[in-house]
Amino acid sequence: MTDRRPFDGQLALADLHSALADPALESMTFLNEVGGRHPEALSLAAGRPYEEFFEIEAIHRYLRRFEQYLTADRNLNPDQVRQAFFQYGRTKGIIHELVARNLAADEGIEVDPEAIVVTVGCQEAMYLVLRALRRDERDAVLAIAPTYVGLTGAARLVDMPVRTVRSGPDGVDLDDLAAVLHRTRGEGLRPRALYLLPDHSNPSGLSLGPAERRALLELAEREDLLLLEDNPYGLFAAASADRPSTLKALDTARRVVYLGSYAKTGLPGARVGFVVADQRVTAPSGASTLFADELAKLKSMVTVNTSPISQAVIAGKLLEHEGSLLRANEREIALYRDNLARLLGGLAALFPAGSGVHWNTPKGGFFLVVTVPFKVDDELLERSARDYGLLWTPMHHFYDGPEAAYQLRLSVSVLTPDQVDEGVRRLGRLINDQQA
Amino acid sequence: MTDRRPFDGQLALADLHSALADPALESMTFLNEVGGRHPEALSLAAGRPYEEFFEIEAIHRYLRRFEQYLTADRNLNPDQVRQAFFQYGRTKGIIHELVARNLAADEGIEVDPEAIVVTVGCQEAMYLVLRALRRDERDAVLAIAPTYVGLTGAARLVDMPVRTVRSGPDGVDLDDLAAVLHRTRGEGLRPRALYLLPDHSNPSGLSLGPAERRALLELAEREDLLLLEDNPYGLFAAASADRPSTLKALDTARRVVYLGSYAKTGLPGARVGFVVADQRVTAPSGASTLFADELAKLKSMVTVNTSPISQAVIAGKLLEHEGSLLRANEREIALYRDNLARLLGGLAALFPAGSGVHWNTPKGGFFLVVTVPFKVDDELLERSARDYGLLWTPMHHFYDGPEAAYQLRLSVSVLTPDQVDEGVRRLGRLINDQQA
Repeated sequence: MTDRRPFDGQLALADLHSALADPALESMTFLNEVGGRHPEALSLAAGRPYEEFFEIEAIHRYLRRFEQYLTADRNLNPDQVRQAFFQYGRTKGIIHELVARNLAADEGIEVDPEAIVVTVGCQEAMYLVLRALRRDERDAVLAIAPTYVGLTGAARLVDMPVRTVRSGPDGVDLDDLAAVLHRTRGEGLRPRALYLLPDHSNPSGLSLGPAERRALLELAEREDLLLLEDNPYGLFAAASADRPSTLKALDTARRVVYLGSYAKTGLPGARVGFVVADQRVTAPSGASTLFADELAKLKSMVTVNTSPISQAVIAGKLLEHEGSLLRANEREIALYRDNLARLLGGLAALFPAGSGVHWNTPKGGFFLVVTVPFKVDDELLERSARDYGLLWTPMHHFYDGPEAAYQLRLSVSVLTPDQVDEGVRRLGRLINDQQA
Repeated sequence: MTDRRPFDGQLALADLHSALADPALESMTFLNEVGGRHPEALSLAAGRPYEEFFEIEAIHRYLRRFEQYLTADRNLNPDQVRQAFFQYGRTKGIIHELVARNLAADEGIEVDPEAIVVTVGCQEAMYLVLRALRRDERDAVLAIAPTYVGLTGAARLVDMPVRTVRSGPDGVDLDDLAAVLHRTRGEGLRPRALYLLPDHSNPSGLSLGPAERRALLELAEREDLLLLEDNPYGLFAAASADRPSTLKALDTARRVVYLGSYAKTGLPGARVGFVVADQRVTAPSGASTLFADELAKLKSMVTVNTSPISQAVIAGKLLEHEGSLLRANEREIALYRDNLARLLGGLAALFPAGSGVHWNTPKGGFFLVVTVPFKVDDELLERSARDYGLLWTPMHHFYDGPEAAYQLRLSVSVLTPDQVDEGVRRLGRLINDQQA
């Protein structure tokens, strides 16, 4: 940039933050746009929750339920209730007690509500944690490949390198994790944390077994590593699968920062997530604070606080189901289970052993990964959308390198069961035409 | 940090981002807490809007009004309306057309709705713009001293130095601005933008006159500088004052990025703000995009999108008043005018010329600054709250240096007229006791 270049409402991309030219942010834009260009295509791509059970009246009901709670359970007078809805409110949020109750009910996680920061979706939680942990250019974050693009993007915004660890069949390859830690330190970097989705990961669909969870916690202890546990899909276990304990429920040494989302289990439009950060932060003076309070300081400079109206909507939904989103999502859980089973059944019927087409078998959640004997790129996705009326996600968007050139991600969250069947048929035609 | 230090849920502040030990973020926390410790004290400190006119039923009404607009004016079918409320939605927001209409109605600003990004309050808009403009360690932002702490904090989060410019009696000292630009460039830094509140600034209460606005735009053109215009208080002109054109309304060369807030004119609890960024960004390939689209890419990695439910609340308020917040705020505008006049009158009655106590006379807004002949620090504020039942804001929080040791900020936005009178009486006792 020259200092006195002529200007006329023109900025050079080369003068703006490097994240703006980064493939991770381009991916997000591309994936959003391709759906918009083909609105009639069936979407085995979208990861948003099923919407047929939504009704606008529920928003009004949730708001009134929270109002009633503030009055009856929290003994606020009418002025205080009004202030709670209309004014800025506490930086860490106003529904922290309800979030804590929800974590106890659905996940067996017992936390001090003061260790919770209510955020603008889980994305802000992720951003705040990385912003806090990135002190200088030596700090790095680890993530399991394939990696959720929101983590990669947030890391780019704080100029923090992401080092990836292989996932293996059980969700994380612990030997590779140890090797990556060693290698990263050898580069002079400080691996501050490992980000992962232990349950029905986006995009892989993989889950960590109970033994891997304990081994991972031990490794984190040994290696002085924080674990950033992201858990948007944990409630959506397949019919045959148990729900294993979250890392946070097993975390006796406060090694785990838990990133919570109400986008899939509450509703996306509220944009309410949270972070449980019960670690202690010690200042040079010896004074100590909760990590949650440090994250709140950063939040006050990003979004000030999470909309209390949005928080009220989520609170109302929680209150209506006695704090349990497992209960609130009974219909959705049944639907996702049925959809996943249909998808797996449909693939098995179309592609017998020896066909060269493989896929994994998730224990629940929205996603699975299909491996095919030909290259899967954005151009193929465009053709799939245009000629076959079918959207899915090329896996290369979730990798830094070329590993995923032969893979695609399928999601079953927005379709009806009949649409899943039809989606599989269209996918079959596409794959067979490619192989012909 | 040692790589293998023992851990037990302990983090060292020295290993976290430096913003966490920064006075700007400490200030925010202190100022929030002092109010909480003295809930019964009269607040000439709080900058939040008056709340006696709020009613919770309005939230329901605004939501239904927006629903009706989507159906009747935008021709969405019931599924699409439901989707608009419940799902994630467009990164740049879903009420951009209404925001554009509001800017035209109240400010005479004509912009393409595509150049608007709806944000989680004005704070996120500020953060996104600084994140985009901070390419590397050479980039700096200028701000007029005293400076809104939210700007300083956002700059800290992106590791961007803030260089301050003197305000002078007309809101900005243009000679000092030229000198600071020269000095900053001499340090090897690139001054990317000047942040300012041209109307009833927080915390100074000062406004730029029409001549200063034009001169500032010319200087920005000459010096290749963006202007970041923050305008939360522009509608609240005193009875005798005209509302001068915003910089953005005068901006023929797309030099101005306009930061909009609905916290004071809509309602704080919605956490809805916006940025108008109609500059073109040119990539090395020659391709060009709107600056708004680049900001949206960053937003997708911070908050994904602004809650559509929150947006619907603001949209409903706009629709109810035909797009004009000047109309929606008739009662508030009258109240703030009356409060400001009472505050000025009360000060004049208590402190005649020669008393050693001075203050400025803002043309509107919430704030004014009092200069006293003794030191004003946080300890005095604590005593004022405890012994006099009065909160105000020590001005040193808005300066990097010691300039403001003898100043305090008063705000008239949350009190009834009678409370303002009583607040001035308490302030009089405090000041007289200090001088005795």
